[in-house]
Amino acid sequence: MRGVLLDRPGQVRIADRPDPVLLEPTDAVIRLAATCICGSDLWPYRGADPAEHMPMGHEYVGTVTEIGDAVSNIAVGDFVVGSFFASDNTCEICLAGYQSRCVHAVPMGAIATQAEYARVPLADGTLVATPGRPDSDLLPSLLAASDVLGTGWFAAVAAEAGPGKTVAVVGDGAVGLLGILAAKRLGAERIIAMSRHADRQELARRFGATDIVVERGDEGVERIKDLTSGLGAHSVIEAVGTQQSMMQAIRSARPGGHVGYVGVSHDVSLPGGELFFAEVHLHGGPAPVRRFLPELIDLIWNRAIDPGAVFDLTLPLDEAAEGYRAMDERRAIKVMLTL
Amino acid sequence: MRGVLLDRPGQVRIADRPDPVLLEPTDAVIRLAATCICGSDLWPYRGADPAEHMPMGHEYVGTVTEIGDAVSNIAVGDFVVGSFFASDNTCEICLAGYQSRCVHAVPMGAIATQAEYARVPLADGTLVATPGRPDSDLLPSLLAASDVLGTGWFAAVAAEAGPGKTVAVVGDGAVGLLGILAAKRLGAERIIAMSRHADRQELARRFGATDIVVERGDEGVERIKDLTSGLGAHSVIEAVGTQQSMMQAIRSARPGGHVGYVGVSHDVSLPGGELFFAEVHLHGGPAPVRRFLPELIDLIWNRAIDPGAVFDLTLPLDEAAEGYRAMDERRAIKVMLTL
Repeated sequence: MRGVLLDRPGQVRIADRPDPVLLEPTDAVIRLAATCICGSDLWPYRGADPAEHMPMGHEYVGTVTEIGDAVSNIAVGDFVVGSFFASDNTCEICLAGYQSRCVHAVPMGAIATQAEYARVPLADGTLVATPGRPDSDLLPSLLAASDVLGTGWFAAVAAEAGPGKTVAVVGDGAVGLLGILAAKRLGAERIIAMSRHADRQELARRFGATDIVVERGDEGVERIKDLTSGLGAHSVIEAVGTQQSMMQAIRSARPGGHVGYVGVSHDVSLPGGELFFAEVHLHGGPAPVRRFLPELIDLIWNRAIDPGAVFDLTLPLDEAAEGYRAMDERRAIKVMLTL
Repeated sequence: MRGVLLDRPGQVRIADRPDPVLLEPTDAVIRLAATCICGSDLWPYRGADPAEHMPMGHEYVGTVTEIGDAVSNIAVGDFVVGSFFASDNTCEICLAGYQSRCVHAVPMGAIATQAEYARVPLADGTLVATPGRPDSDLLPSLLAASDVLGTGWFAAVAAEAGPGKTVAVVGDGAVGLLGILAAKRLGAERIIAMSRHADRQELARRFGATDIVVERGDEGVERIKDLTSGLGAHSVIEAVGTQQSMMQAIRSARPGGHVGYVGVSHDVSLPGGELFFAEVHLHGGPAPVRRFLPELIDLIWNRAIDPGAVFDLTLPLDEAAEGYRAMDERRAIKVMLTL
């Protein structure tokens, strides 16, 4: 089968890879309908993470083609959405809602889903079938649920966005934008998007942002304070993962406020003394997307939300290299790859 | 009046200080019945914080001797307990339960309550009167409520200790020990005290600890994992404030678990990547003791809890220097100074 390979930083190509087969009785194999490029794929693409002959991708929707003997929740022919971590969904950690840290978790990045087919471990716990074959216009939104929507949703939940709350969002990538959508759905009163790109500001407003702050760093923090009687936001979503973005998020929250952080942390070191006196709640990490999938699929199926709008470039899998370039150069917010 | 002065690290003496007077109409003046030495007083005593001719103390109980014109909740003659931060208890931050970060907060350490009298700013918001003149045996517990009990209580609340939860406690000082008491009152099922001192282990068990772990650092973490099916504790109380204790706390919590940290942070730097993948909730800072005071005073008044047991050495104020030595050398858990 064909699959995306990162030969070395900046070098993406389509390679031949072995067709996946069932390895465990709990596995399924799916034929992908679509996959996409994640902001986190840019870390190795830019050389910030190690990358050598690395098969890529961890987001996926598609049709089940094979199931192992122990799989009972999912049938061949089902159209399914899964998270970027496979999880058994039965262990104590999963039952507490932290499926991305399941005691048997398998990162789908190691499976590499920018490909024609993918093996999905722990299929019963990982995959959620849609109510039927989706209309093609639902495909982008269902694909978004696989990671970027679920991650933005988790960030908003971790930040305790809700009625009466002012939510600030650090990061205007797809996750930050979908954090806005999530905060809006969760009932937030006011949502401040921090963005300096007109196209992203527009999408932010469409998803529910009430205010835009273009300043960054300490200036950005001051603007958030100006907009919140000097106190800071109740809830802050962090969707970048750098030192600057983390400190901007922590400083934008009021004492007792909540910071939900989902940007994959790179070279971040949090000063204990400042954190202590900031007195915020801090929660985040790899989003337990599986916790939210049934609800998100339902909202998408009923066309209550349109998270697929973050895909502003769609290319066939074979043109993945152009997709990486477009995201790297910020010409695209998020790229869908079709099969 | 007489008051404790830290001349320089290691050098404590009783000095003459001016009698406090009302400076603002919202002030009260109290005559102290007792004060005490805090674990955090040891930072400047040991030279880890700057210290030069510094009046000391931030914990206090006593009788109101004067009130300003704007004070209405408190009357002359009332016996009162207050927090180590004065707060208006009416601002948005106070109303959300974060009185230690009140927009008008005044640190009582700047007032210096190891003395015969103290001015208490924002008396209406800061002081809570007891139902009557306390019996002398209640004095240690009421004094504990002023900081060390309220701080341990906040840590347990921040760690979401409660029914069905396993709580690990890092730090066997007075705050850690009272975190155990709080976790027990909050209904925790299992409480693991991390301590290697026999006297503190005994108090830990008396306050509700079900298990003792003597190992520290990564070995301590492994023991917590052993006791929790390899998952880690649901709730972890951190009551030290060092790099080692913070990492021990974070690593002892399961994914999705809660770390409540109240040890005043010293030279702590939290690695973003590890924190990200740990996926714990982190919350702490200077405890908003005022939030809990009415409930704590009620529990003490009704003899439902006995937090005063952490005072294992009582000295007259004039012997404060010996009190500091005893705590520094860990001969005493916590020292009460009487007047």
